[in-house]
Amino acid sequence: MAVGVANFPDMPQINGLRFGVTEAGVKYADRKDLVVFEICEGASVAGVFTKNAFCAAPVTVAKEHLAKATPRFLIVNTGNANAGTGEQGLQDALSMCSVLAEIEGQDITCEQVLPFSTGVIGETLPIEKIAAAIPKALSQLEHSTWFDVATGIMTTDTRPKAACRTFSYKGKVYSLAGVSKGAGMIKPNMATMLAYVATDINIAPSLLQDWLQQTTEKSFNRITIDSDTSTNDACILIATGKAGNTQISSIDDELGKRFFEELMSIMQELAQAIVRDGEGATKFVEISVEQASSTQEALNLAFNIAHSPLVKTALFASDPNWGRILAVVGRSDLPNLEISKVQITLNGVCIVENGARAMSYTEEAGQKAMSSEEINITVSLGRSQINESVWTTDLSHEYVSVNADYRS
Amino acid sequence: MAVGVANFPDMPQINGLRFGVTEAGVKYADRKDLVVFEICEGASVAGVFTKNAFCAAPVTVAKEHLAKATPRFLIVNTGNANAGTGEQGLQDALSMCSVLAEIEGQDITCEQVLPFSTGVIGETLPIEKIAAAIPKALSQLEHSTWFDVATGIMTTDTRPKAACRTFSYKGKVYSLAGVSKGAGMIKPNMATMLAYVATDINIAPSLLQDWLQQTTEKSFNRITIDSDTSTNDACILIATGKAGNTQISSIDDELGKRFFEELMSIMQELAQAIVRDGEGATKFVEISVEQASSTQEALNLAFNIAHSPLVKTALFASDPNWGRILAVVGRSDLPNLEISKVQITLNGVCIVENGARAMSYTEEAGQKAMSSEEINITVSLGRSQINESVWTTDLSHEYVSVNADYRS
Repeated sequence: MAVGVANFPDMPQINGLRFGVTEAGVKYADRKDLVVFEICEGASVAGVFTKNAFCAAPVTVAKEHLAKATPRFLIVNTGNANAGTGEQGLQDALSMCSVLAEIEGQDITCEQVLPFSTGVIGETLPIEKIAAAIPKALSQLEHSTWFDVATGIMTTDTRPKAACRTFSYKGKVYSLAGVSKGAGMIKPNMATMLAYVATDINIAPSLLQDWLQQTTEKSFNRITIDSDTSTNDACILIATGKAGNTQISSIDDELGKRFFEELMSIMQELAQAIVRDGEGATKFVEISVEQASSTQEALNLAFNIAHSPLVKTALFASDPNWGRILAVVGRSDLPNLEISKVQITLNGVCIVENGARAMSYTEEAGQKAMSSEEINITVSLGRSQINESVWTTDLSHEYVSVNADYRS
Repeated sequence: MAVGVANFPDMPQINGLRFGVTEAGVKYADRKDLVVFEICEGASVAGVFTKNAFCAAPVTVAKEHLAKATPRFLIVNTGNANAGTGEQGLQDALSMCSVLAEIEGQDITCEQVLPFSTGVIGETLPIEKIAAAIPKALSQLEHSTWFDVATGIMTTDTRPKAACRTFSYKGKVYSLAGVSKGAGMIKPNMATMLAYVATDINIAPSLLQDWLQQTTEKSFNRITIDSDTSTNDACILIATGKAGNTQISSIDDELGKRFFEELMSIMQELAQAIVRDGEGATKFVEISVEQASSTQEALNLAFNIAHSPLVKTALFASDPNWGRILAVVGRSDLPNLEISKVQITLNGVCIVENGARAMSYTEEAGQKAMSSEEINITVSLGRSQINESVWTTDLSHEYVSVNADYRS
């Protein structure tokens, strides 16, 4: 299940970046499950990773490698998260890098390779299968496409997720392109498993890292499907520099400002694509908290609503059972809340004002709003001027099936 | 669905307390939905109520009345929560009290009646139906039983919930008896909707209130089904004093100590009965956090595990997918957590130690543990000496059906 139709975009090639995608048979046969990114020399690479204390072995290794060297390769497997695997897991994550580096020869060191894994937690990585498939993946570097990459990183996703932007500045055309994956265990904390975004623009590494963090905060850190932060979240941003512009190193750079806007937009599209393909999702839901006292207060309330099984099942049922939203607002420990100032709307239909059902509300209007596939719930607290939004899904039978019928 | 078999206990009569239960047709015809408790003169009555800021009108009125006078009657309706109903709701809650007081005549004032409602939030209370049924309820005071009361307060509950204790002290027999209801929107904060416990022991009102708060904290405030605190939670404790003992007014009183033990035990049984009958529940799950730094840390982690849809669906599937538990521990913001000290067991089977799968763990042992109807998950943090437990359910298709197929 998924919300809406997603046509795979016509993705631009990013100069300086190549992919190799193949089948390693990690968990399933005949499924693309191993992806290699080759990054040109001289590129800038930024990364954000899960804050889960039990972060996966590849996350530990990728963070260490990124701190030591500029990456030239990324290697990603699905079907196994290599998390909760202790010392063996670290060895296996390192092996993914060293096997690839050895094949590439003297130019590439083990530290210039970042490993990523996604899939079931707590099972030993079948490293022999992956090692055996790395030459096959590398042989595809001339042939694999963004579509292959987006498909090759899927787990319980029902469709590949990608987005792109091209824009011209002073007569020159620049490109951004990216892919994301994720459908369950989604409540990212600094990133989500997995997203890779690339541009041909030349940007200084530290600025690229700042911009990645800023846009992650407003994109992947604003989505939730089921409240659990994965052990394997990661988002990587690559700037190959092949567009040939003078390196951007200041936030005041005009091309940089334009890039930042496009980056924010592509990051939000990729984050929202994960929600639209959330496990069992039949609705795409935006929850906006307005007139809050602080960003934290707004986000806490928005996520409380987004995580409430009662609100989520009402959304699934297209039932305007707004009492459940009101109950969450009431239990959210908002200090000195004046309930008479609270207003709640559903796709613009006012349901609650003055601490009770809005006088203008009719069940028909509520029913019409809730039957939409895309729903906005706005709670206005009448306290101050802070507004925040998060994106989530409903809770359906399909969600239970996906997570109870087989081990993911 | 519910976990285990629940035989309705052979409940003792509490001297000084009578019930009248009838059908008012609030939401459904031919269903007991109106319960009146008559409390003798001279009794002590204590109460705890929801902390939801959008607390229901009857909660507001009951708290006010309890502060002003010693209650002589409780009146409870199901089928409508009278929450989110504004000024009209307050009028209706007051009417429930005044109509009853008027029938009883000069002896009883409106303030001596406490109102309670449970059911759908946000719909106007059909006060005429309730008012019309009050005389019928009062006419049953000679006839209605604890079973009628336990049945008369049910909403999505599949079975009546009751518990009792009798004990002798210095040759005299004392009794406690109580009922509870609740199956969804259960994550109480100071009480749960609804529980009524009574004893014939003579206890001073302020001490009774202290003991109610202490035992609530370790019983109803330790359960969760779906993380949402109801707008209508309330727990009332009545001490009729008809046993004739000298009034207990100190925590050092020997009979009082004995009573407190029995009270804690009956409160926990009633709270756990709600979990066993949780919406769609197929498992009764105890989550214990041991060796935590503080009570708050232990409870936060225990509730995070209890609320994780991924853990709950794995419990439903009887799948020892312990990686999901590990992911929750990891994302729970435990400051300076040393993952090498974390140990996780499932019904005594060690699944995680030293930050990874336990060497001794086998899938067969995990599978056997998870196939049980009653499951204990213990997470030991190796930090200090604080231990806490909470009780919860799994997340099944039935939960989604109950909350999506009709409005509750």
